[in-house]
Amino acid sequence: MKETLTSLETIAEDECLDLLERQHLGRIVLLAGEQPLIFPVNYAYGDRVIAFRTGPGIKLATAPHTRVAFEIDDYDPLTGAGWSVVVQGVAYEITDAMDRQSQLARRLHVRPLAPGKRDHWIGIHPTAMSGRRFRTPA
Amino acid sequence: MKETLTSLETIAEDECLDLLERQHLGRIVLLAGEQPLIFPVNYAYGDRVIAFRTGPGIKLATAPHTRVAFEIDDYDPLTGAGWSVVVQGVAYEITDAMDRQSQLARRLHVRPLAPGKRDHWIGIHPTAMSGRRFRTPA
Repeated sequence: MKETLTSLETIAEDECLDLLERQHLGRIVLLAGEQPLIFPVNYAYGDRVIAFRTGPGIKLATAPHTRVAFEIDDYDPLTGAGWSVVVQGVAYEITDAMDRQSQLARRLHVRPLAPGKRDHWIGIHPTAMSGRRFRTPA
Repeated sequence: MKETLTSLETIAEDECLDLLERQHLGRIVLLAGEQPLIFPVNYAYGDRVIAFRTGPGIKLATAPHTRVAFEIDDYDPLTGAGWSVVVQGVAYEITDAMDRQSQLARRLHVRPLAPGKRDHWIGIHPTAMSGRRFRTPA
């Protein structure tokens, strides 16, 4: 009954936000028709916006004004301990947005994962957030 | 021009399959209406099936017979080096499936991330796969 040895604990929203601030690599989930797509992105979080940079391509063409998901996690295979935070939200292109939240987001330090010009900013505005901590038996 | 310092390299499918065999933690992406959802899962890969165990819940209710995405990655923030493999595919419940592929998948060793009975098996049959290696400047 190895399942009885595992544990699962909810992470409160405050701590989810701390984790979002501390991490740099996340994964954005988009919809292309009925096919969900997932991309790792370097991001930064501040002032309730998850921001990342991108160039022309499927993320820029697909994400804005749609519901997306965003995930960060960490897992240590040696100890079996890990956690994940999942955000649901709506993505917007904020490259030229003049609202204060978007201007602040564009000042965040985001190091893109891939080469090429990444002149566009996308911001994800969270509508729901959940986190959990888990531990599997070694 | 920090972008010129980053590099991006495609990972061939053979190596994507090797990485799928070697890792244990992945993320499955499902669709609940128009909202994409993402869940970390412990999985195993063999014989062209990505298999994981789950209990009653949204994954079991939503995934079977739909298009899903699955992702694994690794990233070292110290060196900036990382990689990701993204699979598109269709999910099936294979708990009682008698085909040989499903029977082999159920013999894979999968350690669930969360507590509770996880008597159901889901198999993802890949229809497309891509991998990339990236390096961001330190």
